[in-house]
Amino acid sequence: MTYCLVLKLDEGLVCLSDTRTNAGLDDISRYRKMFTWTGDDRAVALMSAGNLSITQGVVDRLDQAVKAAERGEAYQDDLGVDEGETVLSVPTLFRLAQIIGLKMRALTNRHREPIEREGAAAGASIILAGQTRGAEPRAFLIYSAGNFIECSADTPYFQIGETKYGKPIIDRTIRPETALADGVKTALVSMDSTIRSNLSVGLPLDLAVLPTDALRFRTLRRIEEGDPVYSAIADGWSGALGAALSALPDVGEWMA
Amino acid sequence: MTYCLVLKLDEGLVCLSDTRTNAGLDDISRYRKMFTWTGDDRAVALMSAGNLSITQGVVDRLDQAVKAAERGEAYQDDLGVDEGETVLSVPTLFRLAQIIGLKMRALTNRHREPIEREGAAAGASIILAGQTRGAEPRAFLIYSAGNFIECSADTPYFQIGETKYGKPIIDRTIRPETALADGVKTALVSMDSTIRSNLSVGLPLDLAVLPTDALRFRTLRRIEEGDPVYSAIADGWSGALGAALSALPDVGEWMA
Repeated sequence: MTYCLVLKLDEGLVCLSDTRTNAGLDDISRYRKMFTWTGDDRAVALMSAGNLSITQGVVDRLDQAVKAAERGEAYQDDLGVDEGETVLSVPTLFRLAQIIGLKMRALTNRHREPIEREGAAAGASIILAGQTRGAEPRAFLIYSAGNFIECSADTPYFQIGETKYGKPIIDRTIRPETALADGVKTALVSMDSTIRSNLSVGLPLDLAVLPTDALRFRTLRRIEEGDPVYSAIADGWSGALGAALSALPDVGEWMA
Repeated sequence: MTYCLVLKLDEGLVCLSDTRTNAGLDDISRYRKMFTWTGDDRAVALMSAGNLSITQGVVDRLDQAVKAAERGEAYQDDLGVDEGETVLSVPTLFRLAQIIGLKMRALTNRHREPIEREGAAAGASIILAGQTRGAEPRAFLIYSAGNFIECSADTPYFQIGETKYGKPIIDRTIRPETALADGVKTALVSMDSTIRSNLSVGLPLDLAVLPTDALRFRTLRRIEEGDPVYSAIADGWSGALGAALSALPDVGEWMA
Protein backbone atom coordinates (compact mmCIF):
# COMPACT_ATOMS: atom_id res chain seq x y z
CA MET A 1 0.00 0.00 0.00
CA THR A 2 0.94 3.64 -0.09
CA TYR A 3 -0.19 7.00 1.13
CA CYS A 4 0.59 10.21 -0.76
CA LEU A 5 -1.10 13.58 -0.56
CA VAL A 6 -0.80 17.06 -1.96
CA LEU A 7 -2.28 20.22 -0.42
CA LYS A 8 -2.85 23.11 -2.77
CA LEU A 9 -2.76 26.22 -0.61
CA ASP A 10 -2.67 29.89 -1.58
CA GLU A 11 0.86 30.05 -0.18
CA GLY A 12 2.03 27.00 -2.10
CA LEU A 13 2.01 23.22 -2.54
CA VAL A 14 2.75 20.63 0.15
CA CYS A 15 3.58 17.10 -1.08
CA LEU A 16 4.09 14.18 1.28
CA SER A 17 4.57 10.48 0.51
CA ASP A 18 5.54 7.35 2.37
CA THR A 19 8.03 4.82 0.99
CA ARG A 20 6.60 1.43 1.86
CA THR A 21 5.57 -1.09 -0.77
CA ASN A 22 4.36 -4.59 -0.22
CA ALA A 23 3.49 -7.68 -2.17
CA GLY A 24 1.76 -9.42 0.69
CA LEU A 25 2.45 -8.88 4.37
CA ASP A 26 5.62 -10.96 4.14
CA ASP A 27 7.20 -9.03 1.29
CA ILE A 28 7.70 -5.42 2.34
CA SER A 29 10.19 -3.09 0.72
CA ARG A 30 11.12 0.57 0.60
CA TYR A 31 10.76 2.49 -2.65
CA ARG A 32 10.72 6.18 -3.39
CA LYS A 33 7.28 7.28 -4.57
CA MET A 34 8.00 10.99 -4.87
CA PHE A 35 10.05 12.43 -7.72
CA THR A 36 10.88 16.07 -8.36
CA TRP A 37 12.33 18.07 -11.23
CA THR A 38 13.47 21.67 -11.18
CA GLY A 39 14.23 23.80 -14.23
CA ASP A 40 14.83 27.50 -14.80
CA ASP A 41 11.13 28.19 -15.21
CA ARG A 42 9.46 25.43 -13.21
CA ALA A 43 9.38 23.02 -10.32
CA VAL A 44 7.45 19.76 -10.59
CA ALA A 45 6.66 16.92 -8.18
CA LEU A 46 5.16 13.53 -8.99
CA MET A 47 3.85 10.97 -6.50
CA SER A 48 2.60 7.49 -7.33
CA ALA A 49 0.44 4.74 -5.85
CA GLY A 50 -0.62 1.34 -7.09
CA ASN A 51 1.27 -1.10 -9.26
CA LEU A 52 4.93 -0.14 -8.91
CA SER A 53 6.03 -1.60 -12.24
CA ILE A 54 3.55 0.64 -14.03
CA THR A 55 4.41 3.84 -12.16
CA GLN A 56 8.15 3.21 -12.28
CA GLY A 57 7.78 2.63 -16.01
CA VAL A 58 6.22 6.06 -16.38
CA VAL A 59 8.77 7.87 -14.22
CA ASP A 60 11.72 6.14 -15.86
CA ARG A 61 10.58 7.23 -19.32
CA LEU A 62 10.04 10.81 -18.11
CA ASP A 63 13.57 10.79 -16.71
CA GLN A 64 15.13 9.31 -19.84
CA ALA A 65 13.58 12.08 -21.90
CA VAL A 66 14.99 14.78 -19.59
CA LYS A 67 18.46 13.24 -19.67
CA ALA A 68 18.43 12.82 -23.44
CA ALA A 69 17.50 16.50 -23.81
CA GLU A 70 20.36 17.48 -21.47
CA ARG A 71 22.73 15.61 -23.77
CA GLY A 72 21.14 17.29 -26.79
CA GLU A 73 19.91 13.96 -28.11
CA ALA A 74 16.55 13.14 -29.59
CA TYR A 75 14.43 10.75 -27.50
CA GLN A 76 11.39 8.75 -28.45
CA ASP A 77 9.99 6.38 -25.87
CA ASP A 78 8.72 2.90 -26.82
CA LEU A 79 5.13 3.93 -26.01
CA GLY A 80 4.86 6.42 -28.85
CA VAL A 81 3.38 9.00 -26.51
CA ASP A 82 5.46 12.15 -26.17
CA GLU A 83 6.82 14.09 -29.09
CA GLY A 84 10.18 15.11 -27.76
CA GLU A 85 8.50 17.00 -24.91
CA THR A 86 10.06 16.58 -21.47
CA VAL A 87 9.04 17.47 -17.92
CA LEU A 88 11.32 20.50 -18.23
CA SER A 89 10.20 21.59 -21.70
CA VAL A 90 6.44 21.03 -21.96
CA PRO A 91 4.64 24.38 -22.11
CA THR A 92 2.12 23.61 -19.34
CA LEU A 93 1.51 21.21 -16.48
CA PHE A 94 -1.77 20.37 -18.17
CA ARG A 95 0.17 19.04 -21.16
CA LEU A 96 2.47 17.15 -18.82
CA ALA A 97 -0.56 15.54 -17.14
CA GLN A 98 -1.74 14.48 -20.59
CA ILE A 99 1.62 12.92 -21.44
CA ILE A 100 1.83 11.10 -18.11
CA GLY A 101 -1.73 9.85 -18.51
CA LEU A 102 -1.06 8.53 -22.01
CA LYS A 103 2.12 6.79 -20.87
CA MET A 104 0.26 5.22 -17.96
CA ARG A 105 -2.58 4.12 -20.24
CA ALA A 106 -0.17 2.59 -22.77
CA LEU A 107 1.78 0.72 -20.07
CA THR A 108 -1.40 -0.50 -18.39
CA ASN A 109 -2.80 -1.73 -21.70
CA ARG A 110 0.44 -3.56 -22.36
CA HIS A 111 0.72 -5.29 -18.98
CA ARG A 112 -2.71 -5.50 -17.36
CA GLU A 113 -3.75 -8.90 -18.61
CA PRO A 114 -0.61 -10.87 -17.64
CA ILE A 115 -0.44 -9.01 -14.30
CA GLU A 116 -4.03 -9.86 -13.44
CA ARG A 117 -3.52 -13.45 -14.57
CA GLU A 118 -0.95 -13.66 -11.76
CA GLY A 119 -3.56 -12.42 -9.29
CA ALA A 120 -1.95 -9.00 -8.85
CA ALA A 121 -3.57 -5.59 -9.39
CA ALA A 122 -2.45 -3.46 -12.33
CA GLY A 123 -4.19 -0.25 -11.27
CA ALA A 124 -2.14 2.83 -10.44
CA SER A 125 -2.58 6.53 -9.91
CA ILE A 126 -0.28 9.52 -10.00
CA ILE A 127 -0.40 12.98 -8.44
CA LEU A 128 1.33 15.68 -10.46
CA ALA A 129 1.88 19.07 -8.82
CA GLY A 130 4.00 22.10 -9.53
CA GLN A 131 4.23 25.48 -11.17
CA THR A 132 5.60 26.88 -14.41
CA ARG A 133 6.57 30.54 -14.76
CA GLY A 134 3.64 32.77 -15.60
CA ALA A 135 1.03 30.17 -14.61
CA GLU A 136 -0.70 29.37 -11.34
CA PRO A 137 0.44 26.40 -9.25
CA ARG A 138 -1.54 23.33 -10.33
CA ALA A 139 -2.16 19.80 -9.09
CA PHE A 140 -3.57 16.87 -11.05
CA LEU A 141 -4.73 13.38 -10.17
CA ILE A 142 -4.04 11.01 -13.07
CA TYR A 143 -5.68 7.60 -13.42
CA SER A 144 -4.56 4.37 -15.10
CA ALA A 145 -6.94 5.02 -17.99
CA GLY A 146 -5.00 8.19 -18.78
CA ASN A 147 -7.74 10.59 -17.71
CA PHE A 148 -7.13 13.14 -14.97
CA ILE A 149 -8.79 15.75 -12.79
CA GLU A 150 -7.44 19.01 -11.41
CA CYS A 151 -7.45 20.20 -7.82
CA SER A 152 -9.68 23.19 -7.09
CA ALA A 153 -10.41 25.45 -4.13
CA ASP A 154 -13.54 23.49 -3.16
CA THR A 155 -11.40 20.49 -2.22
CA PRO A 156 -7.84 21.81 -2.09
CA TYR A 157 -6.09 18.46 -1.83
CA PHE A 158 -5.61 15.06 -3.45
CA GLN A 159 -4.83 11.74 -1.78
CA ILE A 160 -3.84 8.42 -3.35
CA GLY A 161 -3.37 4.96 -1.85
CA GLU A 162 -4.70 4.34 1.67
CA THR A 163 -6.72 7.55 1.89
CA LYS A 164 -9.40 7.01 4.52
CA TYR A 165 -7.58 7.19 7.85
CA GLY A 166 -5.94 10.50 7.03
CA LYS A 167 -8.87 12.22 5.35
CA PRO A 168 -10.94 13.64 8.27
CA ILE A 169 -8.11 15.80 9.65
CA ILE A 170 -7.56 17.32 6.20
CA ASP A 171 -11.26 17.90 5.58
CA ARG A 172 -11.60 19.70 8.88
CA THR A 173 -8.56 21.93 8.82
CA ILE A 174 -7.33 22.58 5.29
CA ARG A 175 -8.64 25.61 3.41
CA PRO A 176 -6.86 27.39 0.53
CA GLU A 177 -5.89 30.18 2.96
CA THR A 178 -4.24 27.79 5.46
CA ALA A 179 -0.61 28.84 6.09
CA LEU A 180 2.05 26.68 4.46
CA ALA A 181 3.64 25.65 7.79
CA ASP A 182 0.22 24.63 9.15
CA GLY A 183 -0.36 22.65 5.97
CA VAL A 184 2.87 20.74 6.57
CA LYS A 185 1.76 19.92 10.11
CA THR A 186 -1.65 18.73 8.92
CA ALA A 187 -0.04 16.57 6.24
CA LEU A 188 2.28 14.99 8.82
CA VAL A 189 -0.61 14.29 11.23
CA SER A 190 -2.66 12.80 8.39
CA MET A 191 0.29 10.58 7.43
CA ASP A 192 0.95 9.55 11.04
CA SER A 193 -2.72 8.58 11.51
CA THR A 194 -2.44 6.38 8.44
CA ILE A 195 0.86 4.81 9.49
CA ARG A 196 -0.61 3.89 12.88
CA SER A 197 -3.59 2.16 11.26
CA ASN A 198 -2.13 0.46 8.19
CA LEU A 199 1.05 -1.58 8.48
CA SER A 200 1.66 -1.26 4.74
CA VAL A 201 2.21 2.50 5.02
CA GLY A 202 5.48 3.43 6.69
CA LEU A 203 8.48 5.66 7.28
CA PRO A 204 10.66 7.14 5.93
CA LEU A 205 8.63 9.92 4.33
CA ASP A 206 9.42 12.32 1.52
CA LEU A 207 8.30 15.92 1.97
CA ALA A 208 8.36 18.63 -0.69
CA VAL A 209 7.18 22.20 -0.16
CA LEU A 210 6.88 24.56 -3.12
CA PRO A 211 5.94 28.15 -2.25
CA THR A 212 3.80 29.93 -4.82
CA ASP A 213 5.88 31.75 -7.47
CA ALA A 214 9.20 30.55 -6.02
CA LEU A 215 9.73 28.03 -8.85
CA ARG A 216 12.04 26.09 -6.60
CA PHE A 217 11.32 23.79 -3.65
CA ARG A 218 11.86 25.41 -0.28
CA THR A 219 11.87 21.99 1.39
CA LEU A 220 12.95 18.65 -0.08
CA ARG A 221 13.40 16.38 2.85
CA ARG A 222 13.51 12.69 3.65
CA ILE A 223 12.06 12.16 7.13
CA GLU A 224 13.62 9.10 8.73
CA GLU A 225 12.46 7.05 11.69
CA GLY A 226 13.31 8.94 14.89
CA ASP A 227 13.40 12.37 13.26
CA PRO A 228 12.94 14.74 16.23
CA VAL A 229 10.56 17.18 14.53
CA TYR A 230 8.37 14.41 13.14
CA SER A 231 8.41 12.50 16.42
CA ALA A 232 7.40 15.61 18.36
CA ILE A 233 4.42 16.10 16.06
CA ALA A 234 3.38 12.45 16.00
CA ASP A 235 3.76 12.03 19.76
CA GLY A 236 2.26 15.42 20.56
CA TRP A 237 -0.88 14.82 18.55
CA SER A 238 -2.54 12.38 20.95
CA GLY A 239 -2.20 14.86 23.79
CA ALA A 240 -3.40 17.72 21.61
CA LEU A 241 -6.47 15.71 20.62
CA GLY A 242 -7.25 14.94 24.25
CA ALA A 243 -7.15 18.65 25.02
CA ALA A 244 -9.32 19.38 21.97
CA LEU A 245 -11.92 16.84 23.16
CA SER A 246 -11.97 18.38 26.62
CA ALA A 247 -12.62 21.78 25.04
CA LEU A 248 -15.78 20.49 23.30
CA PRO A 249 -19.21 21.17 24.80
CA ASP A 250 -20.20 18.89 27.65
CA VAL A 251 -22.57 15.95 27.05
CA GLY A 252 -23.48 15.81 30.73
CA GLU A 253 -27.15 16.49 30.12
CA TRP A 254 -27.37 13.25 28.18
CA MET A 255 -25.86 11.32 31.06
CA ALA A 256 -28.11 12.54 33.86
CA MET B 1 -22.99 1.15 4.58
CA THR B 2 -23.05 1.54 8.32
CA TYR B 3 -20.89 2.70 11.16
CA CYS B 4 -21.27 1.30 14.68
CA LEU B 5 -18.81 1.31 17.54
CA VAL B 6 -18.55 0.29 21.16
CA LEU B 7 -16.05 1.66 23.67
CA LYS B 8 -15.31 -0.55 26.65
CA LEU B 9 -14.17 1.78 29.39
CA ASP B 10 -13.58 1.13 33.08
CA GLU B 11 -16.55 3.36 33.85
CA GLY B 12 -18.84 1.60 31.39
CA LEU B 13 -19.82 0.88 27.80
CA VAL B 14 -20.56 3.47 25.11
CA CYS B 15 -22.48 2.22 22.04
CA LEU B 16 -23.15 4.41 19.02
CA SER B 17 -24.67 3.54 15.65
CA ASP B 18 -25.95 5.35 12.59
CA THR B 19 -29.23 4.42 10.88
CA ARG B 20 -28.51 4.67 7.17
CA THR B 21 -28.72 1.69 4.85
CA ASN B 22 -28.28 1.65 1.13
CA ALA B 23 -28.63 -0.68 -1.80
CA GLY B 24 -26.82 1.54 -4.25
CA LEU B 25 -26.51 5.33 -4.04
CA ASP B 26 -30.06 5.74 -5.32
CA ASP B 27 -31.70 3.51 -2.74
CA ILE B 28 -31.08 4.91 0.73
CA SER B 29 -33.24 4.13 3.75
CA ARG B 30 -33.26 4.52 7.49
CA TYR B 31 -33.16 1.42 9.69
CA ARG B 32 -32.41 0.97 13.35
CA LYS B 33 -29.15 -0.93 13.80
CA MET B 34 -29.00 -0.77 17.59
CA PHE B 35 -31.20 -2.91 19.79
CA THR B 36 -31.23 -3.06 23.58
CA TRP B 37 -32.76 -5.32 26.19
CA THR B 38 -32.93 -4.73 29.92
CA GLY B 39 -33.82 -7.33 32.54
CA ASP B 40 -33.60 -7.46 36.32
CA ASP B 41 -30.06 -8.73 36.25
CA ARG B 42 -28.69 -7.42 32.94
CA ALA B 43 -28.57 -4.80 30.23
CA VAL B 44 -27.60 -5.80 26.70
CA ALA B 45 -27.01 -3.86 23.46
CA LEU B 46 -26.60 -5.27 19.96
CA MET B 47 -25.43 -3.37 16.86
CA SER B 48 -25.29 -4.73 13.33
CA ALA B 49 -23.59 -4.04 10.01
CA GLY B 50 -23.69 -5.74 6.65
CA ASN B 51 -26.57 -7.55 4.98
CA LEU B 52 -29.71 -6.23 6.67
CA SER B 53 -31.84 -9.30 5.90
CA ILE B 54 -29.35 -11.47 7.77
CA THR B 55 -28.97 -9.22 10.81
CA GLN B 56 -32.69 -8.46 11.05
CA GLY B 57 -33.30 -12.20 10.88
CA VAL B 58 -31.07 -12.68 13.90
CA VAL B 59 -32.56 -9.84 15.93
CA ASP B 60 -36.12 -10.82 15.12
CA ARG B 61 -35.56 -14.36 16.36
CA LEU B 62 -33.90 -13.06 19.56
CA ASP B 63 -36.92 -10.83 20.13
CA GLN B 64 -39.45 -13.58 19.45
CA ALA B 65 -37.77 -15.76 22.06
CA VAL B 66 -37.91 -12.97 24.67
CA LYS B 67 -41.59 -12.29 23.95
CA ALA B 68 -42.49 -15.96 24.03
CA ALA B 69 -40.81 -16.29 27.41
CA GLU B 70 -42.75 -13.26 28.69
CA ARG B 71 -45.95 -15.04 27.70
CA GLY B 72 -44.70 -18.19 29.37
CA GLU B 73 -44.63 -20.01 26.04
CA ALA B 74 -42.00 -22.35 24.72
CA TYR B 75 -40.13 -21.04 21.68
CA GLN B 76 -37.94 -22.85 19.22
CA ASP B 77 -36.66 -20.89 16.25
CA ASP B 78 -36.50 -22.39 12.76
CA LEU B 79 -32.69 -22.42 12.85
CA GLY B 80 -32.45 -25.05 15.58
CA VAL B 81 -29.91 -22.96 17.45
CA ASP B 82 -31.02 -21.88 20.90
CA GLU B 83 -32.49 -24.21 23.46
CA GLY B 84 -35.11 -22.02 24.98
CA GLU B 85 -32.45 -19.55 26.08
CA THR B 86 -33.27 -15.87 25.58
CA VAL B 87 -31.30 -12.64 25.76
CA LEU B 88 -32.78 -12.16 29.22
CA SER B 89 -32.22 -15.70 30.47
CA VAL B 90 -28.86 -16.93 29.15
CA PRO B 91 -26.41 -17.27 32.02
CA THR B 92 -23.58 -15.29 30.37
CA LEU B 93 -22.95 -12.84 27.55
CA PHE B 94 -20.44 -15.35 26.23
CA ARG B 95 -23.26 -17.87 25.74
CA LEU B 96 -25.38 -15.16 24.12
CA ALA B 97 -22.54 -14.39 21.69
CA GLN B 98 -22.44 -18.11 20.84
CA ILE B 99 -26.19 -18.22 20.19
CA ILE B 100 -26.09 -15.07 18.04
CA GLY B 101 -23.12 -16.42 16.10
CA LEU B 102 -24.84 -19.74 15.43
CA LYS B 103 -28.04 -17.99 14.29
CA MET B 104 -26.01 -15.75 11.99
CA ARG B 105 -24.10 -18.74 10.61
CA ALA B 106 -27.31 -20.69 9.98
CA LEU B 107 -28.99 -17.75 8.24
CA THR B 108 -25.91 -17.01 6.16
CA ASN B 109 -25.63 -20.63 5.09
CA ARG B 110 -29.29 -20.61 4.10
CA HIS B 111 -29.20 -17.39 2.07
CA ARG B 112 -25.66 -16.69 0.89
CA GLU B 113 -25.77 -18.42 -2.46
CA PRO B 114 -28.99 -16.86 -3.80
CA ILE B 115 -27.98 -13.45 -2.40
CA GLU B 116 -24.60 -13.55 -4.12
CA ARG B 117 -26.19 -14.79 -7.33
CA GLU B 118 -28.06 -11.45 -7.34
CA GLY B 119 -24.75 -9.60 -7.03
CA ALA B 120 -25.34 -8.56 -3.41
CA ALA B 121 -23.11 -9.22 -0.41
CA ALA B 122 -24.29 -11.62 2.28
CA GLY B 123 -21.63 -10.78 4.86
CA ALA B 124 -22.64 -9.25 8.19
CA SER B 125 -21.21 -8.57 11.61
CA ILE B 126 -22.68 -7.88 15.01
CA ILE B 127 -21.37 -6.15 18.12
CA LEU B 128 -22.79 -7.48 21.38
CA ALA B 129 -22.12 -5.50 24.56
CA GLY B 130 -23.54 -5.45 28.04
CA GLN B 131 -23.30 -6.73 31.57
CA THR B 132 -24.97 -9.43 33.64
CA ARG B 133 -25.06 -9.25 37.43
CA GLY B 134 -21.95 -10.63 39.06
CA ALA B 135 -19.90 -10.52 35.86
CA GLU B 136 -17.71 -7.85 34.28
CA PRO B 137 -19.07 -5.75 31.39
CA ARG B 138 -18.18 -7.50 28.14
CA ALA B 139 -18.19 -6.72 24.42
CA PHE B 140 -18.00 -9.18 21.53
CA LEU B 141 -17.57 -8.85 17.79
CA ILE B 142 -19.44 -11.67 16.03
CA TYR B 143 -18.80 -12.65 12.42
CA SER B 144 -21.02 -14.24 9.75
CA ALA B 145 -19.27 -17.55 10.23
CA GLY B 146 -20.50 -17.61 13.81
CA ASN B 147 -17.09 -17.07 15.39
CA PHE B 148 -16.43 -14.11 17.65
CA ILE B 149 -13.75 -12.22 19.53
CA GLU B 150 -13.91 -10.31 22.80
CA CYS B 151 -12.81 -6.76 23.47
CA SER B 152 -9.81 -6.39 25.79
CA ALA B 153 -7.92 -3.55 27.44
CA ASP B 154 -5.22 -3.53 24.72
CA THR B 155 -7.76 -2.32 22.16
CA PRO B 156 -10.76 -1.23 24.22
CA TYR B 157 -13.18 -0.79 21.32
CA PHE B 158 -14.84 -2.47 18.34
CA GLN B 159 -16.00 -0.91 15.10
CA ILE B 160 -18.10 -2.43 12.32
CA GLY B 161 -19.05 -1.11 8.86
CA GLU B 162 -17.16 1.91 7.53
CA THR B 163 -14.42 1.85 10.14
CA LYS B 164 -11.44 3.71 8.72
CA TYR B 165 -12.37 7.39 8.85
CA GLY B 166 -13.30 7.24 12.51
CA LYS B 167 -10.49 5.01 13.75
CA PRO B 168 -7.55 7.42 14.29
CA ILE B 169 -9.38 9.61 16.82
CA ILE B 170 -10.30 6.53 18.86
CA ASP B 171 -6.80 5.06 18.69
CA ARG B 172 -5.29 8.31 19.93
CA THR B 173 -7.64 9.16 22.77
CA ILE B 174 -9.44 6.08 24.12
CA ARG B 175 -7.89 4.16 26.99
CA PRO B 176 -9.76 1.95 29.48
CA GLU B 177 -9.44 4.74 32.07
CA THR B 178 -11.03 7.39 29.81
CA ALA B 179 -14.06 8.97 31.53
CA LEU B 180 -17.47 7.90 30.25
CA ALA B 181 -18.48 11.43 29.18
CA ASP B 182 -15.19 11.83 27.25
CA GLY B 183 -15.83 8.47 25.62
CA VAL B 184 -19.22 9.70 24.42
CA LYS B 185 -17.58 12.80 22.92
CA THR B 186 -14.92 10.72 21.17
CA ALA B 187 -17.56 8.37 19.79
CA LEU B 188 -19.56 11.31 18.44
CA VAL B 189 -16.48 12.88 16.82
CA SER B 190 -15.54 9.52 15.30
CA MET B 191 -19.07 9.16 13.91
CA ASP B 192 -19.14 12.73 12.60
CA SER B 193 -15.82 12.22 10.79
CA THR B 194 -17.30 9.15 9.13
CA ILE B 195 -20.57 10.86 8.19
CA ARG B 196 -18.65 13.71 6.56
CA SER B 197 -16.62 11.29 4.42
CA ASN B 198 -19.08 8.55 3.51
CA LEU B 199 -22.52 9.47 2.19
CA SER B 200 -23.84 6.05 3.11
CA VAL B 201 -23.39 6.72 6.84
CA GLY B 202 -25.87 9.23 8.23
CA LEU B 203 -28.03 10.69 10.97
CA PRO B 204 -30.04 10.02 13.05
CA LEU B 205 -27.79 8.18 15.51
CA ASP B 206 -28.58 5.83 18.37
CA LEU B 207 -26.54 6.25 21.53
CA ALA B 208 -26.53 3.89 24.51
CA VAL B 209 -24.42 4.38 27.63
CA LEU B 210 -24.23 1.61 30.24
CA PRO B 211 -22.28 2.50 33.40
CA THR B 212 -20.39 -0.37 34.98
CA ASP B 213 -22.50 -2.30 37.53
CA ALA B 214 -25.61 -0.16 36.91
CA LEU B 215 -27.34 -2.97 34.97
CA ARG B 216 -29.51 -0.32 33.29
CA PHE B 217 -28.72 2.15 30.54
CA ARG B 218 -28.08 5.66 31.79
CA THR B 219 -28.57 7.01 28.26
CA LEU B 220 -30.71 5.61 25.47
CA ARG B 221 -31.04 8.41 22.99
CA ARG B 222 -31.87 8.92 19.35
CA ILE B 223 -29.86 11.88 18.05
CA GLU B 224 -31.72 13.60 15.23
CA GLU B 225 -30.46 16.03 12.61
CA GLY B 226 -30.11 19.47 14.23
CA ASP B 227 -29.71 18.15 17.77
CA PRO B 228 -28.05 21.08 19.59
CA VAL B 229 -25.57 19.03 21.64
CA TYR B 230 -24.48 16.94 18.66
CA SER B 231 -24.26 19.99 16.40
CA ALA B 232 -22.13 21.84 18.95
CA ILE B 233 -19.70 18.91 19.07
CA ALA B 234 -19.63 18.34 15.30
CA ASP B 235 -19.25 22.02 14.50
CA GLY B 236 -16.83 22.69 17.34
CA TRP B 237 -14.48 19.93 16.34
CA SER B 238 -12.96 21.64 13.29
CA GLY B 239 -12.05 24.66 15.39
CA ALA B 240 -10.71 22.48 18.18
CA LEU B 241 -8.52 20.60 15.69
CA GLY B 242 -7.18 23.87 14.30
CA ALA B 243 -6.18 24.91 17.81
CA ALA B 244 -4.63 21.50 18.42
CA LEU B 245 -2.54 21.82 15.25
CA SER B 246 -1.36 25.26 16.27
CA ALA B 247 -0.25 23.83 19.60
CA LEU B 248 2.02 21.28 17.90
CA PRO B 249 5.76 21.94 17.59
CA ASP B 250 6.78 24.28 14.81
CA VAL B 251 8.15 22.90 11.53
CA GLY B 252 9.80 26.23 10.71
CA GLU B 253 13.29 24.78 10.64
CA TRP B 254 12.25 22.61 7.70
CA MET B 255 11.00 25.64 5.80
CA ALA B 256 14.04 27.88 6.09
